[in-house]
Amino acid sequence: MTDAETTRETTVGELSEGQILRGILDRLPPSTAPVGPGDDAAVLAVPDGRVVATTDTLVHGPDFRLAWSSPFDLGFKSAAVNLADVAAMGARPIALLVALAMPESTPVSFVRGFADGLAAACAELAPGCAVEGGDLTVSDTLTIAVTALGSLDGREPVRRSGARAGDGVYVIGELGLAARGLEVLFGRFTDAQGAPLPVTDDTRAALSAVDALALSRQLAPRPPLAEALRAADAGATAMMDVSDGLALDATRLADASGVTVAFDSATLGENPALALAGGEDHGFLVTFAPDAEPLGHRVGTVVPRGADAVTVDGRAWTGRAGWDPYRDWDAGRG
Amino acid sequence: MTDAETTRETTVGELSEGQILRGILDRLPPSTAPVGPGDDAAVLAVPDGRVVATTDTLVHGPDFRLAWSSPFDLGFKSAAVNLADVAAMGARPIALLVALAMPESTPVSFVRGFADGLAAACAELAPGCAVEGGDLTVSDTLTIAVTALGSLDGREPVRRSGARAGDGVYVIGELGLAARGLEVLFGRFTDAQGAPLPVTDDTRAALSAVDALALSRQLAPRPPLAEALRAADAGATAMMDVSDGLALDATRLADASGVTVAFDSATLGENPALALAGGEDHGFLVTFAPDAEPLGHRVGTVVPRGADAVTVDGRAWTGRAGWDPYRDWDAGRG
Repeated sequence: MTDAETTRETTVGELSEGQILRGILDRLPPSTAPVGPGDDAAVLAVPDGRVVATTDTLVHGPDFRLAWSSPFDLGFKSAAVNLADVAAMGARPIALLVALAMPESTPVSFVRGFADGLAAACAELAPGCAVEGGDLTVSDTLTIAVTALGSLDGREPVRRSGARAGDGVYVIGELGLAARGLEVLFGRFTDAQGAPLPVTDDTRAALSAVDALALSRQLAPRPPLAEALRAADAGATAMMDVSDGLALDATRLADASGVTVAFDSATLGENPALALAGGEDHGFLVTFAPDAEPLGHRVGTVVPRGADAVTVDGRAWTGRAGWDPYRDWDAGRG
Repeated sequence: MTDAETTRETTVGELSEGQILRGILDRLPPSTAPVGPGDDAAVLAVPDGRVVATTDTLVHGPDFRLAWSSPFDLGFKSAAVNLADVAAMGARPIALLVALAMPESTPVSFVRGFADGLAAACAELAPGCAVEGGDLTVSDTLTIAVTALGSLDGREPVRRSGARAGDGVYVIGELGLAARGLEVLFGRFTDAQGAPLPVTDDTRAALSAVDALALSRQLAPRPPLAEALRAADAGATAMMDVSDGLALDATRLADASGVTVAFDSATLGENPALALAGGEDHGFLVTFAPDAEPLGHRVGTVVPRGADAVTVDGRAWTGRAGWDPYRDWDAGRG
């Protein structure tokens, strides 16, 4: 954020932790848990005696840039990526715990917009899921660590390791759209030195319809959670959230299952390379036995394990596989 | 860490996320969960259909300094503070999720020491609890976000709101020792400009026995979890982890319960002001009805709500109440 923005209004450094917390909780849907926020820990109901739990962190710099992401988008995205991981196990998200580490100069309006984004993601993607706890602290680097918890409601968890030769390989959701949005950001919203330029309503309006959609999906992904749960009910043999790129995530599924995933490039849209390498769509990679009634869009077949974990049109995939934070971060900021 | 340390050995920036993760998981006790680390989310068993969940973040600068805390201490502390919050509800910790955001220059030995500290805290404080998931990412600011999950095993959760007039007020664990340790750090381990000086075996050896103990408790607190669970079984009416200072935490308990907590300074040791203001001991503040068989050390009585949430010897407490990260951080680093 710019100096002008931070000096104009109240910052979190001028308020107590309790005041900031009340400002967040007032914008969120009320707790439905046996014990919600405000005690040492929350108590959540998981009727079948099993809880699904996952955590994911967004860090300013490698994971987002404030010039590009609105506070609302950040709240939405930090909830969505964790909700998708819960749904990928075949579980219904029931609660988020949100740890927010912010510079003291962070405007209070950031916190409000962020809370609104969290609330919108819960309402749109996982109705009934609420923020049931969290933590606020000071940091030089804006950092958002979200834990999502879910209930299997009697379902067996859908693991990565269940794919078998002969299964069909399906994708539920979008492929490569978020990656196209990232290309739009780096191509249209950076200056000659590579520094990010602000995404505003005006600059968005200059984009083509598909670029505008891609940008919006990159900044606030819409994982199709309800379909992932239907896939679990339909007997999916394996399922994963596609977060780091289809080829890389399929490699993980193939390795866990001891099989090879054979993609057919003709099913991967206009830009198969982008579909295979692009991450952050947070759709779902699912396998179904031949006699199941599958959901999603068929992209390939599970075959016995060969030399490669993943093939495209029968050949090893030699393109860029996906995103690894410790290899791929170029330390660009903004 | 110094430049010399970071250039001598492999850093996390030279490894993939998977390599770093394997280096951590290999040092931790094996998962006992239905689905442990390695899938989109973990699946944990909570036989009575309720799960207790809490999250707490440690940030380099406000929460710790690498000159003072060893990687082992940091792993131990980041687990212990979260385990204490679970136990304060009357629950047995079953799992940790650990999100670690590190600069690329972080030595791999840091990650190994940190994992050893996590493992030691689980083994010592909460046997059977394991690290069942996590996240690694890059950040300019070393940040540790831990979520702890627990099982009530049929117990009712012990909330802050259950204290009633006539109950006795007890503390289980140490009071003011961690705060004394913080005084030792600022008094003995800073240079003339206030910059932190390294805590080493040699510099520790120069301390008195009680200062050395206080220092070690500040850097790696030992919350008495087993006693907190026994307090829940003994019918504690309210319980809290004492993390931000006894007076501040008692104020929260008093407000939640609609009562006043009346402390007797004669029960608060040699330095009642330090006992009331000093945080980070992660002992437990507990109330018991008069007919219960209490645990811990009696420090006062619950009385009907008066003008003040907390009194000491019948008067309002006017000393420093405790720690608030958005008011108290002086931006010192190290």
